[in-house]
Amino acid sequence: MAELKPFVRKINYYETDQMHIVHHSNYVRFFEEARLDIMDQYGYDYRKIEEMGIIIPVLYVKADFKKPARYGDTIEIVAKLIKIKGLKFAYSYEIYNQETKELLVTGESGHAFLDKDLKPVRLKKDYPELYEFMQMAAKDCE
Amino acid sequence: MAELKPFVRKINYYETDQMHIVHHSNYVRFFEEARLDIMDQYGYDYRKIEEMGIIIPVLYVKADFKKPARYGDTIEIVAKLIKIKGLKFAYSYEIYNQETKELLVTGESGHAFLDKDLKPVRLKKDYPELYEFMQMAAKDCE
Amino acid sequence: MAELKPFVRKINYYETDQMHIVHHSNYVRFFEEARLDIMDQYGYDYRKIEEMGIIIPVLYVKADFKKPARYGDTIEIVAKLIKIKGLKFAYSYEIYNQETKELLVTGESGHAFLDKDLKPVRLKKDYPELYEFMQMAAKDCE
Amino acid sequence: MAELKPFVRKINYYETDQMHIVHHSNYVRFFEEARLDIMDQYGYDYRKIEEMGIIIPVLYVKADFKKPARYGDTIEIVAKLIKIKGLKFAYSYEIYNQETKELLVTGESGHAFLDKDLKPVRLKKDYPELYEFMQMAAKDCE
Repeated sequence: MAELKPFVRKINYYETDQMHIVHHSNYVRFFEEARLDIMDQYGYDYRKIEEMGIIIPVLYVKADFKKPARYGDTIEIVAKLIKIKGLKFAYSYEIYNQETKELLVTGESGHAFLDKDLKPVRLKKDYPELYEFMQMAAKDCE
Repeated sequence: MAELKPFVRKINYYETDQMHIVHHSNYVRFFEEARLDIMDQYGYDYRKIEEMGIIIPVLYVKADFKKPARYGDTIEIVAKLIKIKGLKFAYSYEIYNQETKELLVTGESGHAFLDKDLKPVRLKKDYPELYEFMQMAAKDCE
Repeated sequence: MAELKPFVRKINYYETDQMHIVHHSNYVRFFEEARLDIMDQYGYDYRKIEEMGIIIPVLYVKADFKKPARYGDTIEIVAKLIKIKGLKFAYSYEIYNQETKELLVTGESGHAFLDKDLKPVRLKKDYPELYEFMQMAAKDCE
Repeated sequence: MAELKPFVRKINYYETDQMHIVHHSNYVRFFEEARLDIMDQYGYDYRKIEEMGIIIPVLYVKADFKKPARYGDTIEIVAKLIKIKGLKFAYSYEIYNQETKELLVTGESGHAFLDKDLKPVRLKKDYPELYEFMQMAAKDCE
């Protein structure tokens, strides 16, 4: 598989709070940006997945805030698929200050393939191509 | 029609930015909160409207920021239906600091009744009850 | 200590995403709303704490999403101070659908008392009253 | 003055709502992103301005929503300084779908140079370099 590129973005003014740092809830949004970017790099644009009738909600998220990002900083997010089991999978995240290379935030999120009524999909039977992809991706995680 | 109550809410910490005031984009969200609350007071919970197959997107919004609201302030929002014409209507807004009674923000937003593909609905033909309600509400606006 | 009341709030339209459920990042914001409300019930309005020169950033957060909240739902958030050690403390959260009583989300967050330059404060020496309060609150956690 | 580049960004999943389009409040945030990017292109990174003791709050904003942007779309924002008078100035905005070239949103915002207590600054006296820049920029607006 081609090498994956980290996701890079600037911090917006509206993402700060009156502590003069990024409000912590926004890092959960940055995780999502990086995760969807990685899926796109894998060839699975999430728009296509939803068009197939699948949604991928978040089952859990956790984040450790080590150092703050501030307005105007550029951050680099390294997202990795770390676990795949059946319909479930997990991503890990590391957010760096691009300039100083300091590690700012680490995190993890868990997900599942569901249909639009939030019921499990039969991935192998109904979406064999996506199933194959996940099997292949699972090997990369081992 | 029974008298409408202003919409009251506190300012959340995550709604501030590093100017130590509410980020201006949030007032557009507060307008929405007050508008949907008023529709609910009118007996038209917006959830029911979407279940009928109608959506009510925003056509325009404007806001004048006179004084800032800050974390911990309680604000009072007076929303009024000010124009109805065919499928379109508009609301005006006044946001007050509940304690000091100062006027903080004024604004206006325009809307239309559309179907889920963003096409105009035939209100009179397909939703006669809602049409009647809008005719009645239009009289209040005159 | 007087009994603490759960924090109650409605879900706003702008808090949904195109999955037709609350975007998961918002629960982290709801945790903050409930935590600051509890501190207020304890008699420590967070505005006063910042005026004393202290900020309380978030060190970590985690959340498990069991069932979705949707636009128009009313949620009830039970926040509890669960650990206090030196300058650090943690809160747990349970979010319920007020109508159905279903448990939707559980979570936890960790915090520290810092000064505005993000350095540890000397709580016992410089803020004896707040230190006393935390000692007392720590007993409740045991 | 060197030619200014439009500001380009992708729409994030968390910026959608259950209408399956970008929530309208987010365009006000996109205006800010484009405005601060333009100021940066002019050589006035807003971080430096705040370090000089100046803040630039928003006095008013308006937006017309013509067509929706959706998750995954890339938008191009053309921001222009359109008026300067004393301490006040205004920007106009046009947001395009980068792929289809359709005009999605137009808007305008007004601003003032204030100090951190939200009082007017004496631009000419206390910040002559910034004053010179605004005089020069004003000529471009004529």
